[in-house]
Amino acid sequence: MRGTLALTALTLPLLALASPTLAQDVAQATTAKAGGATAASPDGSIRVTVTTDGDGRPYYSVTRNGKPLIEPSRLGFLLTDAPKLERGFAIESQQTSSADSTWEQPWGEWKTIRDRHTQLRVRLKEGTAMARVMDVVFRIFDDGVGFRYELPDQPNLKTANIADELTEFALAQDGTAWWIPGAEWNRDEYIYNTTKLSAVPLAHTPMTVKLADGTHVSFHEAALVDYSGMWLQRIEGTKLKAVLQPGAKGPKVIRGTPFTTPWRTMVVSPDAAGIYQSHIMLNLNEPNKLGDVSWFKPSKYVGVWWEMHLDKASWSTGPKHGANTANVKRYIDFAAKHGFRGVLVEGWNVGWDGNWFGNGNDFDFAKPTPDFDMDALSAYAAKKGVHLIGHHETGGSTTHYEKQLDTAFAYAAKHGIEVVKTGYVTDAGQLERVEADGTQLREWHDGQYASNHHLQVVQTAAKYKVAINTHEPIKDTGLRRTYPNWVSREGARGMEYNAWGEPKNPPEHESIMVFTRLLAGPMDFTPGVLSLEGKGGTPILSTIAKQLALYVVYYSPVQMAADLPENYDKYPAAFQFIKDVPADWSDTRVVSAEIGDHVAIARKDRGSENWYLGAVTDETARTLQVKLDFLDPAKRYTAQIYRDGEGADYRTDKRHAIAIESRAVKAGETLSLPLAPGGGAAVRFVAK
Amino acid sequence: MRGTLALTALTLPLLALASPTLAQDVAQATTAKAGGATAASPDGSIRVTVTTDGDGRPYYSVTRNGKPLIEPSRLGFLLTDAPKLERGFAIESQQTSSADSTWEQPWGEWKTIRDRHTQLRVRLKEGTAMARVMDVVFRIFDDGVGFRYELPDQPNLKTANIADELTEFALAQDGTAWWIPGAEWNRDEYIYNTTKLSAVPLAHTPMTVKLADGTHVSFHEAALVDYSGMWLQRIEGTKLKAVLQPGAKGPKVIRGTPFTTPWRTMVVSPDAAGIYQSHIMLNLNEPNKLGDVSWFKPSKYVGVWWEMHLDKASWSTGPKHGANTANVKRYIDFAAKHGFRGVLVEGWNVGWDGNWFGNGNDFDFAKPTPDFDMDALSAYAAKKGVHLIGHHETGGSTTHYEKQLDTAFAYAAKHGIEVVKTGYVTDAGQLERVEADGTQLREWHDGQYASNHHLQVVQTAAKYKVAINTHEPIKDTGLRRTYPNWVSREGARGMEYNAWGEPKNPPEHESIMVFTRLLAGPMDFTPGVLSLEGKGGTPILSTIAKQLALYVVYYSPVQMAADLPENYDKYPAAFQFIKDVPADWSDTRVVSAEIGDHVAIARKDRGSENWYLGAVTDETARTLQVKLDFLDPAKRYTAQIYRDGEGADYRTDKRHAIAIESRAVKAGETLSLPLAPGGGAAVRFVAK
Repeated sequence: MRGTLALTALTLPLLALASPTLAQDVAQATTAKAGGATAASPDGSIRVTVTTDGDGRPYYSVTRNGKPLIEPSRLGFLLTDAPKLERGFAIESQQTSSADSTWEQPWGEWKTIRDRHTQLRVRLKEGTAMARVMDVVFRIFDDGVGFRYELPDQPNLKTANIADELTEFALAQDGTAWWIPGAEWNRDEYIYNTTKLSAVPLAHTPMTVKLADGTHVSFHEAALVDYSGMWLQRIEGTKLKAVLQPGAKGPKVIRGTPFTTPWRTMVVSPDAAGIYQSHIMLNLNEPNKLGDVSWFKPSKYVGVWWEMHLDKASWSTGPKHGANTANVKRYIDFAAKHGFRGVLVEGWNVGWDGNWFGNGNDFDFAKPTPDFDMDALSAYAAKKGVHLIGHHETGGSTTHYEKQLDTAFAYAAKHGIEVVKTGYVTDAGQLERVEADGTQLREWHDGQYASNHHLQVVQTAAKYKVAINTHEPIKDTGLRRTYPNWVSREGARGMEYNAWGEPKNPPEHESIMVFTRLLAGPMDFTPGVLSLEGKGGTPILSTIAKQLALYVVYYSPVQMAADLPENYDKYPAAFQFIKDVPADWSDTRVVSAEIGDHVAIARKDRGSENWYLGAVTDETARTLQVKLDFLDPAKRYTAQIYRDGEGADYRTDKRHAIAIESRAVKAGETLSLPLAPGGGAAVRFVAK
Repeated sequence: MRGTLALTALTLPLLALASPTLAQDVAQATTAKAGGATAASPDGSIRVTVTTDGDGRPYYSVTRNGKPLIEPSRLGFLLTDAPKLERGFAIESQQTSSADSTWEQPWGEWKTIRDRHTQLRVRLKEGTAMARVMDVVFRIFDDGVGFRYELPDQPNLKTANIADELTEFALAQDGTAWWIPGAEWNRDEYIYNTTKLSAVPLAHTPMTVKLADGTHVSFHEAALVDYSGMWLQRIEGTKLKAVLQPGAKGPKVIRGTPFTTPWRTMVVSPDAAGIYQSHIMLNLNEPNKLGDVSWFKPSKYVGVWWEMHLDKASWSTGPKHGANTANVKRYIDFAAKHGFRGVLVEGWNVGWDGNWFGNGNDFDFAKPTPDFDMDALSAYAAKKGVHLIGHHETGGSTTHYEKQLDTAFAYAAKHGIEVVKTGYVTDAGQLERVEADGTQLREWHDGQYASNHHLQVVQTAAKYKVAINTHEPIKDTGLRRTYPNWVSREGARGMEYNAWGEPKNPPEHESIMVFTRLLAGPMDFTPGVLSLEGKGGTPILSTIAKQLALYVVYYSPVQMAADLPENYDKYPAAFQFIKDVPADWSDTRVVSAEIGDHVAIARKDRGSENWYLGAVTDETARTLQVKLDFLDPAKRYTAQIYRDGEGADYRTDKRHAIAIESRAVKAGETLSLPLAPGGGAAVRFVAK
């Protein structure tokens, strides 16, 4: 450490004081001035060190169990209008503190979340005449690290016009990476790449890496608010660097000081399971700002959607219009009969009849088409205990949408709509933004502008007690904690790709998605296509049992049964699982996983003592031996098992083969689950 | 092809008409409408095809000898203020023409350059209401392809605010790539990476690839004028995409229509030699706009430079100031004695005494330091037939420099200065630009702003008959053809890295540089450090013979003898080659090369019948059998051979071992040249 004496403020809560490991670490942090600022996670396994080099460039590094994980990696910013914040720094002060608390999710994969971490705040100050100050704040958990920049208000940095972030992530080892490209046109809807880390070009986040020594690391960001989303650009070897998404006005981010950036996160675990089970993403977001959100009910829905993707119906009006009163009534009846709370209707409103892709200025979010009787349908639904799910496709015309927000959500609330699915169907970089003076700009789906647009939508919706399920979204960064009405998103290749042409989602898709996209937060993947057929009868690369398993494997508090009602009528026995499975959980355990090969997840129903298990495999058949140690030893259970039937195979006509059986089980037993090629298994454990 | 009938304009010069291959190709181009627009190179080996897909996305592809080289690759632009130019296009028309001409370089590696190509112009028009038009013009040579966009003046595209280019280069095969990173801080001064093409992240150009089947392809751009430089971002697999360097104002490029982009170039050859010998880079630039430039004399120089890098002298004033009158007088005497035309003096002017790195606002380009008597020294030099070489270090403060340009070059011309070395020592993205209203901006070394800045410097210098040698430059894209006073540049890791700390330039550096950086144009590498010692006596990873070879291997019309005069006095025999070797050539032949391993180049002196040969190897010793088929069979030669001496090795104290011998040779004979580890050979063939 160079410069003035470090200030070390110790804020040790009771629990931390009781921890000899932590106390020792804090002492180390205080005394390690010569080598920079340093602190370790509560159990001491993960250690962060901040240093400056001979040119005053600040670096951070991370070790796990004493072994380098992140080699010294740069910190700082490029600015469009001032010398960059990158060198000439000395560590002016450091502060270490610890925290251990728990909080409750109003809905989610876990009811109770523990937040236990060490915080290291390092103040860096330029030795030049500008004397600018930059804080870097690390939260060091036992399963990873988050850090962000905090830029105080100061004479020589009133407005930060950020050209780019210089943050690096220099991995100490090569490994296998699962990633989709950044900066590409198709809004993150790609089949995942599996390559060496040293062959990644520019990646979106979350990106997950299994290092040579088996350690798993996932990179992402938390609390993306009023800032631009981060891609990871490999520079050379195994060194990655943050690249911010562009902004049409020049700087990628424009912020007045003081402000904080999103948290750059690294979740670290010896196995894939630990990566999914981390709570770092949620813990690094601010607590609930909305108060009581019990008006949002986690639930399942059906709707007028898959028939359009099959080309059996249209969004636009005319003879094929799916959102006609009679058809929607049919869905309401189906939902009521089978216990679905929601009925999504796409194409219900005015604006679909032109070329709306990337050009949504004809959309009216409070005006149904003439053949869609909103008043009658919402009343009919209410009578049956069903709620229409709204749909606000913007075609990417964000300004046009913003002008209608209050009207649109008032209209939704008036009609009993509890959830609105929003859509931004335009290519990346093509969000249409119109300024007050009429200036047209084109923005990115994860840019600073989009981050503010989405929060405006979510906050306006909250005023009307409406929840938001964003499609073609900004990336999820855990903001559901702060705004619990932001319940789900798309942001990856969903079920619709199984309707469209080639290639369809490959059998490995799910076991990669759980450890990449789903780490960011809930996804409205819309599973449950039991017909296993896309447009023109083309086969979906799955078994029926795998479709069922997805209700447990893919978490979303709004979970669609995507298939046509008439298709569910063909598979009543399998459909029973979809009817039974909840959409809200009190506990979640990844019981077995290898990224890209298979994943099995057990979740406990928040509304009962029942557990559910979903297991999926890739193109390889395998038999999982699932130890039932998640069950309550004091209870007995009936396991309702939905597994691949004899000869089931995603490549053949036997993809529909399913075997359903019931069996008494108890904690500690091992359940053998044979998974077919492209198959899966779903189990409901009913507590007696 | 979709849309209206194609217009095919055939402009066949005499030679082309005489070529049956070409006539056939043109006919093919005319009739290939169904499959898009297509045309082939004069010998038919390289074919370009432009198509549109079902969404009206335009693609181009390239085959070589009927085999795919570039798979269908996208074309188009992202704009910051309008829908992107990327889909909804149909081919409205195509025109094919051919050209065959020759022209002369006023100075260079070759005196006469032949420009023989087929041109294919494809007009793409949007089917939407905007109906925008975009031309893509291909020039198809037998050894590669260049293409550029031409955007006509049109109602819906008055100003193109380009967010990025969408141009792709989807290589049909993987291979080995030699590259340095794009978007990084150190202004292209990196040791080259050798990786699989499929492991390249974001690369600067030129980037050269040896494909699996042995075909060599080099990617770069020609005629970077009023536009932003291109990096190559790998997206996935072997597909690359253009990424433009940022501009501080938002769009990376702002241009009123009509305008043309730089040419995107692919030089293709079965071997490394053919890549270097291509003239595509020069042929795609506009002819000389300056007229007679015989006032520029290709020549060698010495100067006050290496002693600063050794820390034996300083740029700043004070007791160590290198640019003091007595010291410069010593260099003038040395230059005159040994026949050097130029004496570079760095640190001669006011402005070096503060922190000038990235902050050059104290520099005065017409005001010498008090201890540097410009008037006396320039008069003294003139009397001895020597010319001072000016030095304009800007510290990246471009606006400050622009304000002084006329004064600075008038001052230079007045003092007999024929060449000015300019410098932009600041990190990438940190060029200081100040607008008329005082707004400060930070720009990139290869951005649109920089492209205009450099041309302003070069054009102003030309008014005063001064040549420019740019350090920390914008990338070279062949503009020396149009502005032949832009004589050399840096833009890669030069000799100074051998003075500084670790790592020094590795032995493979030169044989990679010839096929990457040097493809762009001349480089002022500043070879000839015969002492082979950097700062503190640290060894340079070379032999003496390799230092000599660099005068032939690295082309520059201003070629420095970089070492201290006292060091040349220690090695008079080796120094003789540096004194003899010219800096201007009438012909150049790569006689043997494997990228990263070795390269041997023969060049013919433009001022005599003598030939010169330079050969360098990497860390591996090898013996080259050089066939002397470049020599004139009608002549006899004395070969003055400077080769690695007994036991020479860059790793040991024997790095100074050199053997010098003379021998009669003639065309057709084979010269055996043993190269030591890290060694080389230089040969002067004196015609009798």
